Amino acid sequence: MPELILPGTADVLAAAARIAPHATVTPVLRSRELDALAGARLHFKAEHLQRGGAFKFRGACNAVWLLDEARAARGVVTHSSGNHGAALALAARSRGIPCHVVVPEGAVAAKLANIARHGATLWRCAPTQAAREAECARVQAESGAALVHPYADAAVIAGQGTATLELLQQAGTPLDVVVAPVGGGGLAAGTLLALRQVQPGCELVLAEPAGAADAARSLAAHARQVEFVPDTVCDGLRAALGVPNFALLDGAATVVTVDDAATVAAMRLLWQVLKQVVEPSSATVLAAILAQPQRFAGRNVGVVLSGGNVDLDVLPWAGA
Amino acid sequence: MPELILPGTADVLAAAARIAPHATVTPVLRSRELDALAGARLHFKAEHLQRGGAFKFRGACNAVWLLDEARAARGVVTHSSGNHGAALALAARSRGIPCHVVVPEGAVAAKLANIARHGATLWRCAPTQAAREAECARVQAESGAALVHPYADAAVIAGQGTATLELLQQAGTPLDVVVAPVGGGGLAAGTLLALRQVQPGCELVLAEPAGAADAARSLAAHARQVEFVPDTVCDGLRAALGVPNFALLDGAATVVTVDDAATVAAMRLLWQVLKQVVEPSSATVLAAILAQPQRFAGRNVGVVLSGGNVDLDVLPWAGA
Repeated sequence: MPELILPGTADVLAAAARIAPHATVTPVLRSRELDALAGARLHFKAEHLQRGGAFKFRGACNAVWLLDEARAARGVVTHSSGNHGAALALAARSRGIPCHVVVPEGAVAAKLANIARHGATLWRCAPTQAAREAECARVQAESGAALVHPYADAAVIAGQGTATLELLQQAGTPLDVVVAPVGGGGLAAGTLLALRQVQPGCELVLAEPAGAADAARSLAAHARQVEFVPDTVCDGLRAALGVPNFALLDGAATVVTVDDAATVAAMRLLWQVLKQVVEPSSATVLAAILAQPQRFAGRNVGVVLSGGNVDLDVLPWAGA
Repeated sequence: MPELILPGTADVLAAAARIAPHATVTPVLRSRELDALAGARLHFKAEHLQRGGAFKFRGACNAVWLLDEARAARGVVTHSSGNHGAALALAARSRGIPCHVVVPEGAVAAKLANIARHGATLWRCAPTQAAREAECARVQAESGAALVHPYADAAVIAGQGTATLELLQQAGTPLDVVVAPVGGGGLAAGTLLALRQVQPGCELVLAEPAGAADAARSLAAHARQVEFVPDTVCDGLRAALGVPNFALLDGAATVVTVDDAATVAAMRLLWQVLKQVVEPSSATVLAAILAQPQRFAGRNVGVVLSGGNVDLDVLPWAGA
């Protein structure tokens, strides 16, 4: 875990300028039918159309391009078998520097192939947090690569906030509330900073799976609650809220927890009606809105669709 | 079949103005990954994000709003259990007039429910072309409703062309070729008119399922070939090229036929990489491009994704 360096609102603006040559300005999608269902005006920020298929490229790209020449030349390293691993590989390739990704034995082969395809070197380790961190430390020591943590990192948080900067510009109307999913809290904390910068009166609501609801408990208790065993279909939201992420979000956001059945139903709606291939983590936001309609009724709601990397052979509603 | 009234390029411009208050300006999507795969710059016009989930709303809306007040008051009628039926229902509702849709016994219940949900009255008939036309004539005679044919109709053709008008404006670069799917030829003929109006040097390539390849044979023989039994997964492309559609397209477009296996593979790519839920008919265009890479290499290619109405419980690659 890095030292507690908290990014500020200006860091999100700087990140937007830094990643502009590399990241995609993703569209904002609307649906009359989903608006009618929710009783609200929903503005979907389509980060599943970001490079690498998730918002993660923004933070990884900001971290990679923040490094000075000498540090950058030694490359970057992270431990993630998911969207952050692929995003960091893509970001490193955009600067032409080495990328190392520590992945646990047993990770999904397709995801590992995706990371390797983007040019990263894979390092395998036992599937425990301790083994991941030890292997990551070893690669760091041997290569001199800079660690880019998936979420507990100031540059990563600032980069993730750029999605909401764009959303606020693109929506064409002031937003009353923005709903984003929360796992480790990179996107959540970055979204908060973007709102503070551009539209401080806009509320931040976080959607979290009931089977990994540490952020809900942490923000309620004003203390990080990290002892839990995640049990959710949302593979992108199983991490515990990071230290800087908690420090930024404490007292500044509320959490709506949703069970997996509601998430899968919302995911199916996003596929059927919005015609978008999004992953379960992305669907938590619509599930949260539909679970508390009175909270969002008649409001302009920003909705961050975080990613779209799914296995098309194993859809969560199959057989249901 | 209506008389042979051929729309002109000015009709497409008029249609664009006429439907502007009702239709969605759908986005144009890009993908670095699909560009690399095709060796071309692909500009995907996302008509699956149109109202009703398909380009069909454009033509239906143009036909509905072209009627004078007295005719409009008596409503509209068509025979289509697919995207055109739902589109005409939506278009009629946008003008507050009655809509009758003749549907064959045995049509997919979900599609019929969709048409009824948009406010149309359903009339059932035996599943033959003769029974459809007889029932349609009966409803016309009794109600005085105006027939809006799914594709062999000047107003419908002109309306479908508006998608390509938008695409040419949105692409940000002149297009060398536009690829659209062809069934009855409403979209194909409308696309041709739009190209003639805005960018006459742009080539038109039509993608057609090998199992319903009457357009390919008709354009090769310079005579309509209507004797065939369609056999394709592309439920939107089983109709024979209409009379006005053939008259416009003869000598003005070439056809690439693709087999269903290539279409299903392309559909899966559009879901996996572009993250878009499109139906098989839409995927024929990408299948055609990937089947003849030398034809499109290095070119700016407009690609019309025609619709996204699929049954999420029955995906064509399941079990493959």
